[in-house]
Amino acid sequence: MEIIVGHQISNSAVSRRATVLLLVSVSMVWPVSMLAQAGTTTGMGSSVDRAGFVNTLMPEPSSLVPESGSFHLDASMTVSVTVPGDLLLEHAATRALIQMENTTGLTLNKNFAADSATASLQIQVSQSAKEVQSLDDDESYTLSVRPGKIVLQAPSDLGAMHGLQTLLQLIQQEPSGYILPAVTITDTPRFRWRGLMIDVSRHFQPESVILRTLDGMAAVKLNVFHWHLTDDQGFRVESLRFPKLQNLGSDGLYYTQNQIREVVAYARARGIRVVPEFDIPGHAISWFVGYPELASGPGPYKIERTFGIKDAAMDPTQESTYKFLDTFIGEMSSLFPDAYMHIGGDENKGKQWMANPSIRSFMQAHQIENPAGLQVYFNKRLLKILTKYHKRMMGWDEIMTPGLPNDIVVQSWRGVKSLNQGAKDGYQGILSAPYYLDGMRDTATHYLADPVPADSDLNAEQQKLILGGEVCMWGELISPQTIDARMWPRTAAIAERFWSPAAMRDVDDMYRRLQVMSLRLDADGLQQISDPQRLQRQFIGAGSSPEFAVLISVLEPVSLHERSHLKHPDQWMPLNDLVDAVIPDPPSRHNFAHAVGEFLGDAAQHERAKYNLEKLFQSWQQTAPTLSILMQRSPRLTGDSVRAEQLAELGNIGTEALLYLEAPSAIPPGWKDAKLAEIHAIEEQKSLVRFTILEPLTQLVQATGGEEASTQSH
Amino acid sequence: MEIIVGHQISNSAVSRRATVLLLVSVSMVWPVSMLAQAGTTTGMGSSVDRAGFVNTLMPEPSSLVPESGSFHLDASMTVSVTVPGDLLLEHAATRALIQMENTTGLTLNKNFAADSATASLQIQVSQSAKEVQSLDDDESYTLSVRPGKIVLQAPSDLGAMHGLQTLLQLIQQEPSGYILPAVTITDTPRFRWRGLMIDVSRHFQPESVILRTLDGMAAVKLNVFHWHLTDDQGFRVESLRFPKLQNLGSDGLYYTQNQIREVVAYARARGIRVVPEFDIPGHAISWFVGYPELASGPGPYKIERTFGIKDAAMDPTQESTYKFLDTFIGEMSSLFPDAYMHIGGDENKGKQWMANPSIRSFMQAHQIENPAGLQVYFNKRLLKILTKYHKRMMGWDEIMTPGLPNDIVVQSWRGVKSLNQGAKDGYQGILSAPYYLDGMRDTATHYLADPVPADSDLNAEQQKLILGGEVCMWGELISPQTIDARMWPRTAAIAERFWSPAAMRDVDDMYRRLQVMSLRLDADGLQQISDPQRLQRQFIGAGSSPEFAVLISVLEPVSLHERSHLKHPDQWMPLNDLVDAVIPDPPSRHNFAHAVGEFLGDAAQHERAKYNLEKLFQSWQQTAPTLSILMQRSPRLTGDSVRAEQLAELGNIGTEALLYLEAPSAIPPGWKDAKLAEIHAIEEQKSLVRFTILEPLTQLVQATGGEEASTQSH
Repeated sequence: MEIIVGHQISNSAVSRRATVLLLVSVSMVWPVSMLAQAGTTTGMGSSVDRAGFVNTLMPEPSSLVPESGSFHLDASMTVSVTVPGDLLLEHAATRALIQMENTTGLTLNKNFAADSATASLQIQVSQSAKEVQSLDDDESYTLSVRPGKIVLQAPSDLGAMHGLQTLLQLIQQEPSGYILPAVTITDTPRFRWRGLMIDVSRHFQPESVILRTLDGMAAVKLNVFHWHLTDDQGFRVESLRFPKLQNLGSDGLYYTQNQIREVVAYARARGIRVVPEFDIPGHAISWFVGYPELASGPGPYKIERTFGIKDAAMDPTQESTYKFLDTFIGEMSSLFPDAYMHIGGDENKGKQWMANPSIRSFMQAHQIENPAGLQVYFNKRLLKILTKYHKRMMGWDEIMTPGLPNDIVVQSWRGVKSLNQGAKDGYQGILSAPYYLDGMRDTATHYLADPVPADSDLNAEQQKLILGGEVCMWGELISPQTIDARMWPRTAAIAERFWSPAAMRDVDDMYRRLQVMSLRLDADGLQQISDPQRLQRQFIGAGSSPEFAVLISVLEPVSLHERSHLKHPDQWMPLNDLVDAVIPDPPSRHNFAHAVGEFLGDAAQHERAKYNLEKLFQSWQQTAPTLSILMQRSPRLTGDSVRAEQLAELGNIGTEALLYLEAPSAIPPGWKDAKLAEIHAIEEQKSLVRFTILEPLTQLVQATGGEEASTQSH
Repeated sequence: MEIIVGHQISNSAVSRRATVLLLVSVSMVWPVSMLAQAGTTTGMGSSVDRAGFVNTLMPEPSSLVPESGSFHLDASMTVSVTVPGDLLLEHAATRALIQMENTTGLTLNKNFAADSATASLQIQVSQSAKEVQSLDDDESYTLSVRPGKIVLQAPSDLGAMHGLQTLLQLIQQEPSGYILPAVTITDTPRFRWRGLMIDVSRHFQPESVILRTLDGMAAVKLNVFHWHLTDDQGFRVESLRFPKLQNLGSDGLYYTQNQIREVVAYARARGIRVVPEFDIPGHAISWFVGYPELASGPGPYKIERTFGIKDAAMDPTQESTYKFLDTFIGEMSSLFPDAYMHIGGDENKGKQWMANPSIRSFMQAHQIENPAGLQVYFNKRLLKILTKYHKRMMGWDEIMTPGLPNDIVVQSWRGVKSLNQGAKDGYQGILSAPYYLDGMRDTATHYLADPVPADSDLNAEQQKLILGGEVCMWGELISPQTIDARMWPRTAAIAERFWSPAAMRDVDDMYRRLQVMSLRLDADGLQQISDPQRLQRQFIGAGSSPEFAVLISVLEPVSLHERSHLKHPDQWMPLNDLVDAVIPDPPSRHNFAHAVGEFLGDAAQHERAKYNLEKLFQSWQQTAPTLSILMQRSPRLTGDSVRAEQLAELGNIGTEALLYLEAPSAIPPGWKDAKLAEIHAIEEQKSLVRFTILEPLTQLVQATGGEEASTQSH
């Protein structure tokens, strides 16, 4: 069986080699993707969803009807933009044309046609763009692609921008040129609040990182950038009123007000709202470095370098605190035009409050029983200030307390249960708990987590209070050189959860489209492919090493929690170990599980899957001698070199399992138990990097049917 | 013979596969490099220059004496900075420590030691840093590395910065950790002016590109960034006095004055002067879009989109022109603190002047005979303005005319002969002609070109007038996504020419060190490896394709001249074809020539070289079926798919040549002529990408000794 993904090769020697390389370097390191666009199937999920139309859209639109024929994209295309009175959409259209050029290499006409009726791409919007977006904006659009004519219609510039992204994703290559298949798309988001939060306090992210992130968000139709600007470990925004905030609280790493304005404008131009977070009363040590009088305990304070929950908290009993906050929030309100302001409010245990006699007296005088009560008092005072500046309050679960009005928005890090309780109490909310990227979970898990699950016990009115969700990228263990690979492409799949109809839950198909989407983001300048490769080059001291690539392809980082437990990181620790160079949920996880599934369960695919698995296990076995020399030589890799030895052994186990599945009678006594124990021991071993392949391999060993000792328990 | 670069592998099947992959992916795509640091030899030049010391420095210092032992780099290192009264050097030292952390993964102590006598790394500078650098600054340093103690001494912060770069390059890894071999280095640059020019007019380069370029320049000890800010195709600097310059002349793509100040400060912090160029009286169409009254012909003017020499020129006969220039140069003089200002002055043929009757009358009235004379008049007036603002004039060869004083600096695009004539006439000059990167010449050619060649006919006094040289990166065919791979790593080798002693001309050794240097630049954030790989991913629609990588590895772009001739590019043309994704002088050129040289001429290496060549030719042959499908499928690649077919044929020719070299009697009649003709035809074929391997392959075929037809002539 010499059937190879997307290729027909006659010479068998060539074929064998090509297959190995495809498996190693394409299928496993980065799977076949655009190949799907040319109409082949990858065996990793169907690439053809609807009659003849190769769907690689992400997020999926709410309705798509394939039509006959296609639009041929070439230099003759003319574009018209019909929109009352502003330039935002014209700029968006120009950017889309430049992206088309990048995709195709064509030089397109970027002067908009004067006669909109004859243009081959017509963009029609009925309302002029608002300077500041709001939660209630209509983001829908319709897109009609026909031979010779494309019409994109939307009530607002926002819908048109989303439609342009869909348009870009429709481009397919054929040997003769580029086409867009004829379709009718009617699309509108399921949720109004589709956010991504980045913590820039624990590790600062330069403006350039934020800008490219906004490009990525726009590509997958996210519409809220939640900017976690302050925390114990750094105050990242310039205040002209209180300059010691950034001057003493940031190591010089903060955004100037000019930069903030640039980011806000860049986001608005892409249909994205910017919601700033100033986390108080806890998580505020960086404020106290310059202004210790805000704290509940005596100073002096230093920027916090370690992570975790700290005791220090703002003093809610001093009028001077509210005077300061009034001035500060007034200043920030004019800098950030969005209607919402996030005040954090999380994880204050009240220790510093209770240790302060004057605060205890205040509580007694005001009949406040406990720290939670004092925080309610603080939040009520804060709410008045926010209201004064026409901002709506947003915060983490903890702000959802009796006495605060229902027009605040609760962001749930605790999960659907807490979110639903809020909805039952009348609070608007967004879900974040299942979308914490630092948990290093696989994309499918994030993808299947729904803000309003099918079995939700909320009634229709309560469900309306669930505004959407937010992906959270916390900053303990990310640097500008690693953040992209932690965020992308997983965030694209979550964006689909927030945008597309609830019924879309096909994990195989999501992974197939995700691989294409990742290459699109790569082309747009996101670094999730380039960054890990750069770090890998540094490890091996060369441009590439096929053996190292094989190892990397089946490893992923452990979660923030596990890494913190093993290594006790702080803000100073360089983030350039092997764990920083491997990516969460690499394609190997899904692809290997899929191949094992086909081999064991799909008679039609059995022989092909077997051949591919054989080659794959051989590639693992063959890494051993080279990797062992390479990793022992590098001080940074020696700690993980055991993973190289284990990979070769896992290759042996896989090879043997394939043999014994054909010849069960040859299985030596005790073989199965011994191999299961080996895999289990590898799984249990503490390390900063873990294998993605152990579960399907265990299935394979178990499928051999070898005797299982009664004492064995897994 | 199974000897493999840097590896010992026992299993022969594994070994064979590993060899192929090493050849393809390491040696040819990106050769072994840091491996050299571990003490192995690569066969591509000696990695051990001096007793036991593995030298990967670039540029080479003027004197290096290896000592015994080494300094062990670990978290216990303490650092002191002794410098009178400024922070520049402390910041440079902190950056160096962060780079050490990036290299090693160690967390280093970044608080400087109070007691400088006991610190393990002592940085001692005797003069405080000047706010503005000058041509006459002392850039020398001495560096003593001993077990337990490193001392870096320099008269100025500039020398210390260079010394820190050398220090970073000395770090070597051993299995037990990181060390710096004990050495004594005494170092000073050969030339005072070591520049890199970037043309940001024809294609704009964002500030982020400029900043990372300055990092690269600092790493290789270049000290002048020549910023070609204006030309026919775009005016790239903000003028507050004449805002229509940038508002109408730049498509909105220009540097704000804030950005200019940031770049100047960033450069100064790295020991780099910034010399701005405002190219007049020709190359100035972008000025005329906003201010047509400056031109010698009637307007209106548009930003020029095509390339090449244009007729339009500033009107040198109007007093209003000089009033404008006085104000403009006054404004720019305060923005750019360097003592030099470049006024271009090149390629004005005077056509627009001679077509203007009023200008002709002026010439007659002033007894000016021809356009050259009028330009002398213009330059003299300009010189007065520059002098008023305390700037020294710099320009291209054309400004070197009778009547201009000797304190101007001439930048020679015409070559050594013109430069030497200038020196004989008493002009200071710098050489640029051999360092034009858009000629896509190999690194060795650039490297061997010397501003003062060994056979120079200048006397000692005249030689002193040759200040140095400048690498030139013109902007016709570069984008922010391709510029790094056009500049690096070739610029590093030219930087060595400008810095190191003239006698250092070992090309093999330069290439060996260049490969290491390229990985260092990659780690520092330069994009010369990442950018082409990103574009390649877009072509193949997947993360990687081994076959495509093999093809890419033996192709390089044709020169600006050839590409312009074949394709007539303009400013609008997307720069994302195959020619933009292949790199000039890829390692394959030198490595393949070297391997053929060893095979034919070095008995000791013959068998190993033969084995490697066999595998290499097979890898070329085996690309054919996969590549042919891939390239025919992509509209952007079909034009070059003939190169894929040719590569397989070149592999056949190589394989046959190896066979016939062993069995000359088996050579079929006419074989040699036919194959030489095939290679020649492939060489002659017009295409935007050309092979790097044809010359050594021709040698190989010729070495077979097959009969050569008398009619054959190559």
